[in-house]
Amino acid sequence: MNLILIDPQEVRADGRVRLDDQRAAHARDVLRASPGKILRVGLLNGPLGKGTVERKTTDSVTLYCEWETDAPLRPPVDLLLAMPRPKVLKRLWAQLAALGIGRIILINAKKVERFYFDTHVLKPAFYTKRLIEGLQQARDTRLPDVTVVKQLKPFLEDEMNALFPKSEKRIIADPSGPRTVSQCLHSAPKRACLAVGPEGGWTSYELKLFEKHGFEAFSVGSRILRTDTACIALISLLAESLRNKV
Amino acid sequence: MNLILIDPQEVRADGRVRLDDQRAAHARDVLRASPGKILRVGLLNGPLGKGTVERKTTDSVTLYCEWETDAPLRPPVDLLLAMPRPKVLKRLWAQLAALGIGRIILINAKKVERFYFDTHVLKPAFYTKRLIEGLQQARDTRLPDVTVVKQLKPFLEDEMNALFPKSEKRIIADPSGPRTVSQCLHSAPKRACLAVGPEGGWTSYELKLFEKHGFEAFSVGSRILRTDTACIALISLLAESLRNKV
Repeated sequence: MNLILIDPQEVRADGRVRLDDQRAAHARDVLRASPGKILRVGLLNGPLGKGTVERKTTDSVTLYCEWETDAPLRPPVDLLLAMPRPKVLKRLWAQLAALGIGRIILINAKKVERFYFDTHVLKPAFYTKRLIEGLQQARDTRLPDVTVVKQLKPFLEDEMNALFPKSEKRIIADPSGPRTVSQCLHSAPKRACLAVGPEGGWTSYELKLFEKHGFEAFSVGSRILRTDTACIALISLLAESLRNKV
Repeated sequence: MNLILIDPQEVRADGRVRLDDQRAAHARDVLRASPGKILRVGLLNGPLGKGTVERKTTDSVTLYCEWETDAPLRPPVDLLLAMPRPKVLKRLWAQLAALGIGRIILINAKKVERFYFDTHVLKPAFYTKRLIEGLQQARDTRLPDVTVVKQLKPFLEDEMNALFPKSEKRIIADPSGPRTVSQCLHSAPKRACLAVGPEGGWTSYELKLFEKHGFEAFSVGSRILRTDTACIALISLLAESLRNKV
């Protein structure tokens, strides 16, 4: 935990916050909080700031918080991910938030098992906790937006443009992709939406559908990666390319 | 398992291999092996090839293997990693092999806990199994070399040049690094050795030591990542940069 993330509703009118959960335990046991000590804090979806420890008891820590003027920018990468096995997704939430994602869409595909969508791992109460863990790791405050979509074609046809404006670059990872990530980003877009397929890959029908909706296919070589490894590897490539084009 | 990896000692003089472990179960249950079916096989540290199913019983599968002429190239990235928590390293082995690493050196650093080195996760019998899992995922045959080093300074002074020739590029990840990965690789090296620090980061003494031994510091922005996420993200960036410079 490199940042203590606070929900705006937890902040009292006088700027004070009383923590009595894991964050208090972390502040006390790991950060050795004592009155006067300044801790890094962040307001969920808002600015970073500093929290001065005012009081410490056996089960709570009270901070007086001062916030910076601006909130961190929304991360420039959005992810359209074919629904992975629940076990994999469970591990992935915190890592996605740590890497920095604006919006996560979990989507059905031919090679996704239907029952994957029945998992508790898709419940907001479950994933929000994991996402916050990742933000606290990476020192970010911007909670990714999460949407679950059970039909690919209607989504691409009817909803895609509203969620990912056409001005954003759209790219899709596929071993047959003729380009590299940086070739796809030569136009120096500000944001990019990355589509990542299921373990068995996209079908050629799905690839054509994506292409029709403006996704450029790229490849990163012939190694086949597990979904979680692939997501981290690809998001990292994309974030680095976008950062260096600015 | 996208490849069945076979130890050269398992291959009989007539080119036949009898599998009776997890690989047999996978060939039977997932790949639906039946006589005549061709499976992708690889020879550990050797070439890829095809294995024709000759015989299938309830507990074994016999393949007749034909090998390609050349083995896959050794991956161009080497990793010098401050010893992570055993729990993290346990998860990381297969992912490192899947991403492709030539040599992995696990090394001590100021912010590494001494007891991390006592773990069974560092035993060759443990990690070789995980590395092979990763190779089978990524369709590679090259087992990374693994070395465990308990003292950083003597290693850099006396052993580094033998393991990583000076002609290889040496880079170290640190938030203070003034360059990007691609700036570090502008000279288009063939191989690169990447140093990744412990959760708390390198000390300034350690950074200076690395610098003295030819490591250039680079940064990938201000987000703080967990060791496993950071390794995957950085190796992916490095592999992609090296691939595109060739």
